[in-house]
Amino acid sequence: MDYSKMCPKYEHAAELLGKKWTGLIVRVLMGGPKRFKDMKEQIPDMSDKMLTDRMKELESSGLVKRTVYPEMPVRIEYELTDKGRDLEDVIESIQNWGEKWM
Amino acid sequence: MDYSKMCPKYEHAAELLGKKWTGLIVRVLMGGPKRFKDMKEQIPDMSDKMLTDRMKELESSGLVKRTVYPEMPVRIEYELTDKGRDLEDVIESIQNWGEKWM
Repeated sequence: MDYSKMCPKYEHAAELLGKKWTGLIVRVLMGGPKRFKDMKEQIPDMSDKMLTDRMKELESSGLVKRTVYPEMPVRIEYELTDKGRDLEDVIESIQNWGEKWM
Repeated sequence: MDYSKMCPKYEHAAELLGKKWTGLIVRVLMGGPKRFKDMKEQIPDMSDKMLTDRMKELESSGLVKRTVYPEMPVRIEYELTDKGRDLEDVIESIQNWGEKWM
């Protein structure tokens, strides 16, 4: 096994998952597209600023897609991309390990 | 699902896995007990200080057990505990996701 080659992709992925709130936001979005206020309701301890920052990061990492519906008032929804949805098993395995050992 | 309750254990676990070199060290130790120099050989890019620091962290997190064999010269081996070995699937799932999407 060539460890040096496996390393950067693993670490990039693990770093992303290790950021505070990221796993939780992704899990909430597993339930389907959400508006900002829906996410706030499900994660009340997170500040607006933190959620805004994390959503921008998740969008730029390609995990989340942001759609603006030109209604009155404008409606903005966030949903997981395929890349984001594919994290379900990963997050579950981290969660299970954490539940068992932490 | 009570997200607020799931959060701390997940985040603790994800933070641990997200630390630079940790995943790699754990993967190397999946191959069985190793001495410091064996690990260095398999991860040549990591400094001695970094490996020393990470091994201390992994030991205090209960992922790694350090055994001192009273020989001449003294032999010190590191091996995964059950908690550490149980990370195999977690690390593999992060790795697979990273390979696919990063």
